[in-house]
Amino acid sequence: MVGDTLERVKSGINGMDEMMQGGFAFPSTVLVAGSAGTGKTTFALQFLARGVRDGEQGLFFTTLSEPTQWMLRFVTHFTFIDKDSFGKQIKYVDLGPVLRKDRDPDILLKYIDDQIAEHMPQRIVIDPLTVVGEMISGSYRTFLYDLTTRLKNWQAVSVLTGEVLPGQMYPVELSYVVDTLVLLSTDLSPEGTRRKYLEILKMRGTNHATGKNLVDLSARGFVVQVGLR
Amino acid sequence: MVGDTLERVKSGINGMDEMMQGGFAFPSTVLVAGSAGTGKTTFALQFLARGVRDGEQGLFFTTLSEPTQWMLRFVTHFTFIDKDSFGKQIKYVDLGPVLRKDRDPDILLKYIDDQIAEHMPQRIVIDPLTVVGEMISGSYRTFLYDLTTRLKNWQAVSVLTGEVLPGQMYPVELSYVVDTLVLLSTDLSPEGTRRKYLEILKMRGTNHATGKNLVDLSARGFVVQVGLR
Amino acid sequence: MVGDTLERVKSGINGMDEMMQGGFAFPSTVLVAGSAGTGKTTFALQFLARGVRDGEQGLFFTTLSEPTQWMLRFVTHFTFIDKDSFGKQIKYVDLGPVLRKDRDPDILLKYIDDQIAEHMPQRIVIDPLTVVGEMISGSYRTFLYDLTTRLKNWQAVSVLTGEVLPGQMYPVELSYVVDTLVLLSTDLSPEGTRRKYLEILKMRGTNHATGKNLVDLSARGFVVQVGLR
Amino acid sequence: MVGDTLERVKSGINGMDEMMQGGFAFPSTVLVAGSAGTGKTTFALQFLARGVRDGEQGLFFTTLSEPTQWMLRFVTHFTFIDKDSFGKQIKYVDLGPVLRKDRDPDILLKYIDDQIAEHMPQRIVIDPLTVVGEMISGSYRTFLYDLTTRLKNWQAVSVLTGEVLPGQMYPVELSYVVDTLVLLSTDLSPEGTRRKYLEILKMRGTNHATGKNLVDLSARGFVVQVGLR
Amino acid sequence: MVGDTLERVKSGINGMDEMMQGGFAFPSTVLVAGSAGTGKTTFALQFLARGVRDGEQGLFFTTLSEPTQWMLRFVTHFTFIDKDSFGKQIKYVDLGPVLRKDRDPDILLKYIDDQIAEHMPQRIVIDPLTVVGEMISGSYRTFLYDLTTRLKNWQAVSVLTGEVLPGQMYPVELSYVVDTLVLLSTDLSPEGTRRKYLEILKMRGTNHATGKNLVDLSARGFVVQVGLR
Amino acid sequence: MVGDTLERVKSGINGMDEMMQGGFAFPSTVLVAGSAGTGKTTFALQFLARGVRDGEQGLFFTTLSEPTQWMLRFVTHFTFIDKDSFGKQIKYVDLGPVLRKDRDPDILLKYIDDQIAEHMPQRIVIDPLTVVGEMISGSYRTFLYDLTTRLKNWQAVSVLTGEVLPGQMYPVELSYVVDTLVLLSTDLSPEGTRRKYLEILKMRGTNHATGKNLVDLSARGFVVQVGLR
Repeated sequence: MVGDTLERVKSGINGMDEMMQGGFAFPSTVLVAGSAGTGKTTFALQFLARGVRDGEQGLFFTTLSEPTQWMLRFVTHFTFIDKDSFGKQIKYVDLGPVLRKDRDPDILLKYIDDQIAEHMPQRIVIDPLTVVGEMISGSYRTFLYDLTTRLKNWQAVSVLTGEVLPGQMYPVELSYVVDTLVLLSTDLSPEGTRRKYLEILKMRGTNHATGKNLVDLSARGFVVQVGLR
Repeated sequence: MVGDTLERVKSGINGMDEMMQGGFAFPSTVLVAGSAGTGKTTFALQFLARGVRDGEQGLFFTTLSEPTQWMLRFVTHFTFIDKDSFGKQIKYVDLGPVLRKDRDPDILLKYIDDQIAEHMPQRIVIDPLTVVGEMISGSYRTFLYDLTTRLKNWQAVSVLTGEVLPGQMYPVELSYVVDTLVLLSTDLSPEGTRRKYLEILKMRGTNHATGKNLVDLSARGFVVQVGLR
Repeated sequence: MVGDTLERVKSGINGMDEMMQGGFAFPSTVLVAGSAGTGKTTFALQFLARGVRDGEQGLFFTTLSEPTQWMLRFVTHFTFIDKDSFGKQIKYVDLGPVLRKDRDPDILLKYIDDQIAEHMPQRIVIDPLTVVGEMISGSYRTFLYDLTTRLKNWQAVSVLTGEVLPGQMYPVELSYVVDTLVLLSTDLSPEGTRRKYLEILKMRGTNHATGKNLVDLSARGFVVQVGLR
Repeated sequence: MVGDTLERVKSGINGMDEMMQGGFAFPSTVLVAGSAGTGKTTFALQFLARGVRDGEQGLFFTTLSEPTQWMLRFVTHFTFIDKDSFGKQIKYVDLGPVLRKDRDPDILLKYIDDQIAEHMPQRIVIDPLTVVGEMISGSYRTFLYDLTTRLKNWQAVSVLTGEVLPGQMYPVELSYVVDTLVLLSTDLSPEGTRRKYLEILKMRGTNHATGKNLVDLSARGFVVQVGLR
Repeated sequence: MVGDTLERVKSGINGMDEMMQGGFAFPSTVLVAGSAGTGKTTFALQFLARGVRDGEQGLFFTTLSEPTQWMLRFVTHFTFIDKDSFGKQIKYVDLGPVLRKDRDPDILLKYIDDQIAEHMPQRIVIDPLTVVGEMISGSYRTFLYDLTTRLKNWQAVSVLTGEVLPGQMYPVELSYVVDTLVLLSTDLSPEGTRRKYLEILKMRGTNHATGKNLVDLSARGFVVQVGLR
Repeated sequence: MVGDTLERVKSGINGMDEMMQGGFAFPSTVLVAGSAGTGKTTFALQFLARGVRDGEQGLFFTTLSEPTQWMLRFVTHFTFIDKDSFGKQIKYVDLGPVLRKDRDPDILLKYIDDQIAEHMPQRIVIDPLTVVGEMISGSYRTFLYDLTTRLKNWQAVSVLTGEVLPGQMYPVELSYVVDTLVLLSTDLSPEGTRRKYLEILKMRGTNHATGKNLVDLSARGFVVQVGLR
């Protein structure tokens, strides 16, 4: 009999590890896709916060140039993360100036590589990655290909967040090149409230739970209500 | 336990502050999106009028070159705003000539920055922002990125209004770069009247009420009927 | 208490003025949007005919080069308009040659301005405006922006008609820049007849009736059956 | 009281004249739109055959280069038309070579004008007109504008046929510039047969019957079953 | 009384000739449209096989460069066709090299013409024609126009097969220029099997049966179950 | 009577060979199409693993530059394949560097040809082929045409995997040029789980079972539950 030979790291999302044989494959790339307000940044922070607890280094790339103090204020909203880990166990790097100034995908890739080499993280976040597609010169597809090829060479799990248009399921170009695809979505209940869902749509080399699961999203972060639809 | 550490300012919309832990985060950027006739300009005026009441300076950028006297006539239609505040607590600036003449996003950004530096507002409105996308030369996406990055550097809440196509939910490029996303929408009731709704779809760092809420829109401005769907 | 401080002019459409606090705001721009056969030209003629009755000068710009005699034949079909007013209280100007020859939006704008300056109308029609978008060189959006900015400088109500594709609600670029948006639409009844509707979707500074209203369209022109859906 | 002051010519379609105050306005342009197999060419032939009976000259422009003998074979299929009228009361002109060789809209327009001047028809057909849009160099919209402006200058009724994509209602560019818009359509009955319909969607200056009417299409041509849906 | 004066040839499809007054018009062009797996090539082979039986010469143009031996293997799958007729009564010509090398529509047209002139077939197949649109330089529409004009000059029935996108009904550009339009389609039955249908959507000069008919597709080729839906 | 004269090879998918007269035609090209997470790579591995069991050489081209050790880890997840066959009976070739560096379809084609000539496989996989369309310069369609023409010249069955957009059925350009088209799809059950399906949509020269069949996808690979829908 063949068991699960993939090394796993905890996702940090309450209830999600049981859905995927114990956690994300290590190393691997994870696309977290959802439209506005589905909680992609919160997901990424929970993922990094769990790493802090497990003694792993985290690296958070922002493409939106949110100032560190904005991020700190945002972080203090949550109970699952220690604000003091920011700048230490979780390095916070702004890709905005590189993106804005050069628009050259190769310079951007080199900058990302240099940052990873410097901090040697086990957990990497790029939030949101889809913004890059609109701002670099040259082919987005080739950039994604090169980026994920490089990320695979590092011993890390990379969580890449992707904005989707309302009605779309996920950003297709990104879905090709990642190992794991997590969908965050919402719908309006008959009572007019907006319900939130998490689904693992693809996970290479893993028997994962399928289908949409209701999630709670609060100051405690995501909690997956496995089996609740 | 971690409380709400974000500073808040009142929205000016009756019933809306309770939906979002007391008000808009300060500073932050707010996209108010809706199709024609959903009341985006009225929302923006209520937001500024509330600032007047709270002793804050307001700055209203129009992109449509409505003459001041047109705006004054429009404003006298409403009971929530004092016409005399126009030109004083609420500065009214026409972006039309800059937009029309130069079409250069950098000149436009500089002009906006200069106006903010001169008036030092706590509340800023750009109405409608989406028009800019059709009129500037160069990349709209980069302009939005630069604009919101700059707005974040000012101590202010910026309300940006966005036209949406019928059937669309919100202008996607704008939704990426704002902290808060408010949707104004309408539908036809079975009796053939047009009902109006307000929904907070995204609000970074805030536990906000979700789902569509019926609104009244009259000379008193918006009144959110929280819980009524 | 604040009353309605906007000056109003009668629309000429039977039943419509009660839906909008007495009439169109004066001055203002009105988009009348509808697909083929919804009666846009008839609406425009009723609007001008009412002006004749109220002693106002009208100016009808056609973009389709219908010869005057064609228009006269068309007009004699209706009971609400006096054929003899054509050429006198209602000036009829063909934009076709300018549009066809130069395709230059600035020459077109100047020609329109000159005609308005010569006739000094209180009521202006451009029918259909959407054709211009296909025929001018340069940006349609900028043209619309310039046109409506100029029209606002004249003391007049301008009715601009717009063709919509079947399935579309209204021409979006035009909806941005007008004060009032009127939709003409049709559907097929279960019995297979085609019903006609009028809806005021947007009206800046006015508490207007909302929702779709059944209309009669005959030799007497439009009659809105307010409250009938 | 104002009566119908428009001169009318019989359509040739059994049951259709009663739907439109006696016939097509003379002169006017008529768009007959429908997808493949809805009978546009048959409609055009009935229209011309009626002219033969009323002593009017007809002119049939084909854009598809069907050889005259093909057309004769096609015509002999129908009982409503006398094959011998071809080449005499109905001139048959192939636009194909002009379209194919020069692709110049002005040469095409001149050729059409010359043919009309030579034969002085009261009834003109261009079948199908939509093909021209794919083959001329330069703007189709401007061509349509010029074509219909010229056709209006002749004392004739022009029937222009237009192919529509399945799911589309009519070719939008053409619908702008014609006086009358006739839709031919089909659907699948619950029993799996294909039903055919005729609807007059727009007719300037005419009180016309509205809604979809079932039609029979056979060797006798179209017969409208007015009131049958 | 006017009878059917069109010469007819048998389609080779069991049950189809009764739907169309005895067969395809001779000469004429037939578009057989369907998505992947609907049996277009099988239809074309049955059409040619019937010609063999009736002593007519066939000419099969492939655009996909299937080697002759591949085609022979494919053909032996069917009971309706004699493998030995390949290369004799049915000539098999590969358009691939011309298409691939020159991409010049005029060279392709000349090559097709030369082949027809050499073999003088009564039945011609081009399978699939839609591939040409992606590979030639220059206008596909003009090519189709020229191709069908030339095919009409030969005394033959030409069956052109066309791939359609799922959800589309037929390739629109092709539908304009053919005399007969046959749709092959499938749907999923409630039990999850895929049912196949044949519909004659358009047939110039012929009273044809309308609506979708169930078909059997097996080693015996197509059998139309007329009246079964 | 005519039997099945096509040579067959086993697919390796449990339950699938019975659906298609014993297996894939040899030689032939097979498109396996599905959206993210439907198991395309697993299908391809099962196909190669079966070849190992039957003493056939396999060749796996990856376009995503998954390192061999990643693939080995992935492979160990499954019980149907012997990890030790990798590098021996299954050669693993990365097309990434060629694709990334030259972007020249001819260099890519030559590289593929050389690899096939070197290893002389009976079973070939390109996974995923659709990525190539985004990365080569020049026409994707022509590349596909050339690729499949070349593959047909080798004595092998080629399984090409294709990503489809959510909502699409299959990549249309690829569907034209393959002999067999297999669809992998999913839907959400009423209970919220995601069901997986396999359908053979097209198979030239083969009487294949039609319709969607439920599949199990686990460490044992695909198991088709024929007849279960």
